[in-house]
Amino acid sequence: VARGRLARPGGRLAVGIDLGGTTLNGLLVGEDGGLLARRRRATPKAEGAEAVLAAVRDMAAELLAEAHALKDSAAGAPALASREIIGLGFGIPGPVDAERGVCLFSPNLGWRDLDVASYFRQAFDLPVCVDNDVRAATLGEAWLGAGRPYRTFICLTVGTGIGAGVMLDGRLWRGPGSCAGEIGHIPIDMRPDAPLCGCGRRGCLEAVASGTAIAREAGMSSAREVADAARRGDAGAIAVLERAAAFLGLGISAAITLYNPEAVVVGGGVAGAWDLIGPVVRRTVEERTFPPNLAGLRGIFPAALGQDAGAVGAASLVLAPGVAQVEGASP
Amino acid sequence: VARGRLARPGGRLAVGIDLGGTTLNGLLVGEDGGLLARRRRATPKAEGAEAVLAAVRDMAAELLAEAHALKDSAAGAPALASREIIGLGFGIPGPVDAERGVCLFSPNLGWRDLDVASYFRQAFDLPVCVDNDVRAATLGEAWLGAGRPYRTFICLTVGTGIGAGVMLDGRLWRGPGSCAGEIGHIPIDMRPDAPLCGCGRRGCLEAVASGTAIAREAGMSSAREVADAARRGDAGAIAVLERAAAFLGLGISAAITLYNPEAVVVGGGVAGAWDLIGPVVRRTVEERTFPPNLAGLRGIFPAALGQDAGAVGAASLVLAPGVAQVEGASP
Repeated sequence: VARGRLARPGGRLAVGIDLGGTTLNGLLVGEDGGLLARRRRATPKAEGAEAVLAAVRDMAAELLAEAHALKDSAAGAPALASREIIGLGFGIPGPVDAERGVCLFSPNLGWRDLDVASYFRQAFDLPVCVDNDVRAATLGEAWLGAGRPYRTFICLTVGTGIGAGVMLDGRLWRGPGSCAGEIGHIPIDMRPDAPLCGCGRRGCLEAVASGTAIAREAGMSSAREVADAARRGDAGAIAVLERAAAFLGLGISAAITLYNPEAVVVGGGVAGAWDLIGPVVRRTVEERTFPPNLAGLRGIFPAALGQDAGAVGAASLVLAPGVAQVEGASP
Repeated sequence: VARGRLARPGGRLAVGIDLGGTTLNGLLVGEDGGLLARRRRATPKAEGAEAVLAAVRDMAAELLAEAHALKDSAAGAPALASREIIGLGFGIPGPVDAERGVCLFSPNLGWRDLDVASYFRQAFDLPVCVDNDVRAATLGEAWLGAGRPYRTFICLTVGTGIGAGVMLDGRLWRGPGSCAGEIGHIPIDMRPDAPLCGCGRRGCLEAVASGTAIAREAGMSSAREVADAARRGDAGAIAVLERAAAFLGLGISAAITLYNPEAVVVGGGVAGAWDLIGPVVRRTVEERTFPPNLAGLRGIFPAALGQDAGAVGAASLVLAPGVAQVEGASP
């Protein structure tokens, strides 16, 4: 894990900010993967879409100021002073047109058709890259995390909702409509009375295996509360988590069979209960996956960067285009 | 449809042979997509693996002789005489290492770890390309068939089994283990007593929606017999086909949600009953697919090249590398 690692002197810097519906997480990242400064604050979404934008701008300004301070303090050390701030990257919850840098729709931030790239380009006069938060986290895990050894892997984010980023042969597969990897919405619970999903359909993976679904099934306020109860031996909580994990395993099995990845990485809040769900996910995948595809799978791993994956990946959009090559973005 | 189309004078020629478990289908194809000669015969698989190989070699020799005859007869027409025979392509049922041209395993042909490319290279002293039959059919539909207008589409083959070829941004996605697109083996019937699949798991798409499954459910000898009965108004046959079509729609829905294709093309023997299954497949996909992914889908179409798709695609491996660019073949 790169966290806290010291950057090599010199080299390029970028700001990466992960815009969560609950938390804004910002990092100053070196091109060698060093995390040089961080900012973290609650997303002021109750104050409206403009307030969220202003909070992100302020955070970016603070991280850029840190970068300049680093350079100034290193005035006597030419290698450090040679550091160049090359841009800003942003990960946004919801569909994003990455080519234009436009947020198409983000219910969590209250944004719709917002030209994020132009806004920050004008604010800071620096290059700006924007992508969906799940894809940003995938790029983060690809660059510095659990996906690093693999050219082809799927990175699931299991939290309030369920999404996935798809790395195929070292490139992010986004799809011509920018909505590849929507694993949260594959039909998985086929019963006619399956739980209703936020998308309006019944029985989507997200409706039966997300943090929201886990909390609802257990009658608790959060998946974390369910995990805590399960760790205390609460049989009901254990049953709810195992059921969700089995559904997750079925969804992952479908993705392995279609994409033939070398690895699957699972992040997001629910991955914090990996000790409880991991064994059931793995067993279900082993039982339900087509043998040749299973044979090609090196493993199912919890994400390595935790809550920093999105911000690291957002910075990598600017810093590590070799990892972040975006394919299929234009129709 | 290219069938019967006259080739432009001049230009390059290739032989393409689709090695089915039941039928060997061979074509002499021009680089403009003209189909200049054909051979078709039953696969002599009862006579053993060697006999199949010899029958394919004889068919290839006959098609090459046709190509030479074309050139000779055009001796007075320099443009025709300038035609160049540039190689042979083969589509093989079962997993293939396309990079090495090796058939890893084909129960239908009785082959295992057979170096097909070397065999035919030595036999004819010409370049040879080999790929899986479903992928060859996908390349055929991409080059001259229903996939032609799309850079990103999925081509299902629904026959004895169910497989799919995946074209992403104009390139075939094969997967690092050469088993991407194994849609026949995604878990789709979640009941504990779901039908057993040939792969040893229960409830795979292939176990509930292939031609084999349709015939078994209806207690008839083939899916074609079931389709004929349904067209005569047999309520039981109609119910069996509609149930299989609904499962097929669920599988296609999962693939659309994961890959975000512009189109889905359905070929194989069961596509011959498209008048009966098409409406149910489309309705299920419309009802069960995540709206943004559904919005990006231009349609679900029957394959256009019919039984020639595999042979056309096999020839395109040699003739149209722009279409046939193979990605992710090496680990």
